[in-house]
Amino acid sequence: MKKISVLFFFASLITIAQTKDEQQIKRIYDAALTQGSAYNWLNHLSNQIGGRLSGSVQAQQAVDYTKAQLDMLGLDRVWLQPFMVPKWVRGTPEFAYIETNPGITTNVPICALGGSVATPLVGLKANVVEVKGLEDLKALGEEKIRGRIVFFNRPMDPTEIDTFESYTGCVDQRYNGAEEAAKYGAVGVVVRSMTLRLDDYPHAGAMSYGDTPLENRIPAAAISTKGAELLSTTLKLNPKIKFYFKQNCRQEEDVESFNVIGEITGTTHPDEIILVGGHLDSWDLGDGSHDDGAGCVQSMEVLHLLKTTGYKPKRTIRAVLFMNEENGLRGGNRYKKIAYEKKENHIFALESDAGGFSPRGFSFESSKANLERAQSWASLFEPYLVHFFKEGYSGADIRPLDNGEMVLAGLRPDSQRYFDHHHAENDTFEHVNKRELELGAAAMTSLVYLFDTYGIVN
Amino acid sequence: MKKISVLFFFASLITIAQTKDEQQIKRIYDAALTQGSAYNWLNHLSNQIGGRLSGSVQAQQAVDYTKAQLDMLGLDRVWLQPFMVPKWVRGTPEFAYIETNPGITTNVPICALGGSVATPLVGLKANVVEVKGLEDLKALGEEKIRGRIVFFNRPMDPTEIDTFESYTGCVDQRYNGAEEAAKYGAVGVVVRSMTLRLDDYPHAGAMSYGDTPLENRIPAAAISTKGAELLSTTLKLNPKIKFYFKQNCRQEEDVESFNVIGEITGTTHPDEIILVGGHLDSWDLGDGSHDDGAGCVQSMEVLHLLKTTGYKPKRTIRAVLFMNEENGLRGGNRYKKIAYEKKENHIFALESDAGGFSPRGFSFESSKANLERAQSWASLFEPYLVHFFKEGYSGADIRPLDNGEMVLAGLRPDSQRYFDHHHAENDTFEHVNKRELELGAAAMTSLVYLFDTYGIVN
Repeated sequence: MKKISVLFFFASLITIAQTKDEQQIKRIYDAALTQGSAYNWLNHLSNQIGGRLSGSVQAQQAVDYTKAQLDMLGLDRVWLQPFMVPKWVRGTPEFAYIETNPGITTNVPICALGGSVATPLVGLKANVVEVKGLEDLKALGEEKIRGRIVFFNRPMDPTEIDTFESYTGCVDQRYNGAEEAAKYGAVGVVVRSMTLRLDDYPHAGAMSYGDTPLENRIPAAAISTKGAELLSTTLKLNPKIKFYFKQNCRQEEDVESFNVIGEITGTTHPDEIILVGGHLDSWDLGDGSHDDGAGCVQSMEVLHLLKTTGYKPKRTIRAVLFMNEENGLRGGNRYKKIAYEKKENHIFALESDAGGFSPRGFSFESSKANLERAQSWASLFEPYLVHFFKEGYSGADIRPLDNGEMVLAGLRPDSQRYFDHHHAENDTFEHVNKRELELGAAAMTSLVYLFDTYGIVN
Repeated sequence: MKKISVLFFFASLITIAQTKDEQQIKRIYDAALTQGSAYNWLNHLSNQIGGRLSGSVQAQQAVDYTKAQLDMLGLDRVWLQPFMVPKWVRGTPEFAYIETNPGITTNVPICALGGSVATPLVGLKANVVEVKGLEDLKALGEEKIRGRIVFFNRPMDPTEIDTFESYTGCVDQRYNGAEEAAKYGAVGVVVRSMTLRLDDYPHAGAMSYGDTPLENRIPAAAISTKGAELLSTTLKLNPKIKFYFKQNCRQEEDVESFNVIGEITGTTHPDEIILVGGHLDSWDLGDGSHDDGAGCVQSMEVLHLLKTTGYKPKRTIRAVLFMNEENGLRGGNRYKKIAYEKKENHIFALESDAGGFSPRGFSFESSKANLERAQSWASLFEPYLVHFFKEGYSGADIRPLDNGEMVLAGLRPDSQRYFDHHHAENDTFEHVNKRELELGAAAMTSLVYLFDTYGIVN
């Protein structure tokens, strides 16, 4: 009898805890859906400020605006973390055409890739060699590449369900294409845009020259998927056609910029830090609503929702809006450096940098024990249609923090539409649904609440 | 040893079946994402034909087009099922304003509700009484309602995660508002649009006068949510303001229309029918892409994907595009009547009528045993991020078929954006994502495959 009573007692305790968690999560969701600020903040970031490339006036305006908004939340601490960021400038809009015969041209939409050098002032015109990836360069050899523009045209794989997998399988063309093609004497590279749609938007994104000497750097551009299809078809009909493009982007001197940080200090374990973040910078073609205005306002909303629901965290909850994720990751690296210097103890970090779409779950980088514990919470999220709790990538800005003991996680929203907008002119506010954004913030806040309540397994 | 061998033998059989199912489902998804026809079909239905209200020229064009497309799939049978449908016509665009003082007016967006009578030719102007639902009418009584326009303004509940729940909690105002308000002497009703967004789109939808005599029927309109907010605020400032609206919609004679049906005859159990369907009619303001062009092309795609993957079903697989779901359900009722007359044995019916968004799962109306069996298949869908297998509503067109033994199910896509577009001018093709539509068709085909392979539990 006694045994049964004890069991019953513990079973009751578990039930009470479960009920308490259910209630707090319900409060969080209700507040997110009825008293949320995320959508209004994003409206301002997107429509009053716009694209926020590192070093731009807009990036600075975004720092000022989000700091001012955090200041108004009644947090325990709000501050800026200064450091130097690269400043790459697109210059005047790019221009490109396919020349099938001298004087017979068809314009195609392109944009310079981030970090690229300009073409000569008069533009660059050359024959084109199409490849499906970096590995094709070696097979072709210098003879077939020298003096030409290399056209990287491997599409994203449509059969992957997670579109980030398709992206990962293609993005080496964009990031390393110019560096590799230059080794074989190419004069420029044009890369098929990283999207699963067939449309007219070129998609920007970072590229790198590695240690290619300045004088050997060749200009790199993204071409829209429809442009890529046209170029490929035209090349098949006549391999001697030429491609022309002109871009006058440039790298300027580094300028000072900031991570924006706000926190609620923990009541009983203030030295244990739970971080939630996104990145404040964006590419310049759209207004960066999904990438990653959404993640920033959701991170701010986590603090706002904890306040709104009257929850006093035991641990310190910190929202970090990282600067320069897109072309340098200096914000994430700077944050880590200071955290290490101060011997700060981060137990959990959660990044939202996959768009403001309907949240499907979270992916975790952690020990097996901590993953299993997070998975044991999944039933609390089921009423909110959040089902995915698996091992996987967390986020670029928080990964530098990883010390092998803490838990890192990424919000996983539905990924189907993400690359329709990613780094392109149509990454704009009207493509963010208010409820989807709010549900993401509520899911994040609920997970933060659980880590605050139960800590991590050591 | 022998026992273990037998166990091992059966365990192997289960593993082989699982693997076979996994492989067929993978083939289905790959085909949907690389060789799908659904998106092109929907493009035609939406952009070449447009809104398809029962009895309209467009509805007939949609019948002709989809039958022709099914004819080209190489099915075993394609046919039309004729019957008479109601023909309600909107007439010239509606017009409405709030009059705060004589001559001082603010226009607001409205549309006539489907089935409503017209206002007098010069329009209708009256004082307004705002209510939050049908139950308020009795409390107010005839004295406060007679001669006025009743303004139904209970918003959809934003805290429901499934937006169909919010809709169900509000739609009685639209469907029964005019019938009930007329009993208290109201001269017209204006109903807040059924959407969670604040915007300028009035949302159409069916209403009913029940058995109200013709001469007592009062006109009913939907007002955009921003219009509703303005009207409510204005009323609070001055309860004596007037509302004016003008609509010249009318009910015409019934006309002939059709369900469009195509089937692959089963190889070993041709008399066991598996039905997959959507409805071909739509409201007239948008082009009916989500409601329910998506469900129609997904149902056609089920047959196409079975063909494309070379799968020969044991049972008969039938796609049915129902006519007149929106304002009469005559297609669903007619189909059921003929099925009963012919003593057809439907074992499973699946409807897609919740938009072409990312599929989250299925809801089932069935015996417990069949529900549990469907739930045992959930792990096969997990790689495709389809997690939801629960008891719940199936679909309006297939419910008449229910004989207590068969299994009925509804595709459950992500519901967050559905009511942004539902029955409104912005239910248009550009709001359908190709991959989300295709993933829905693949999920449906996979479930149909499993029911074809394993049948139902009796």
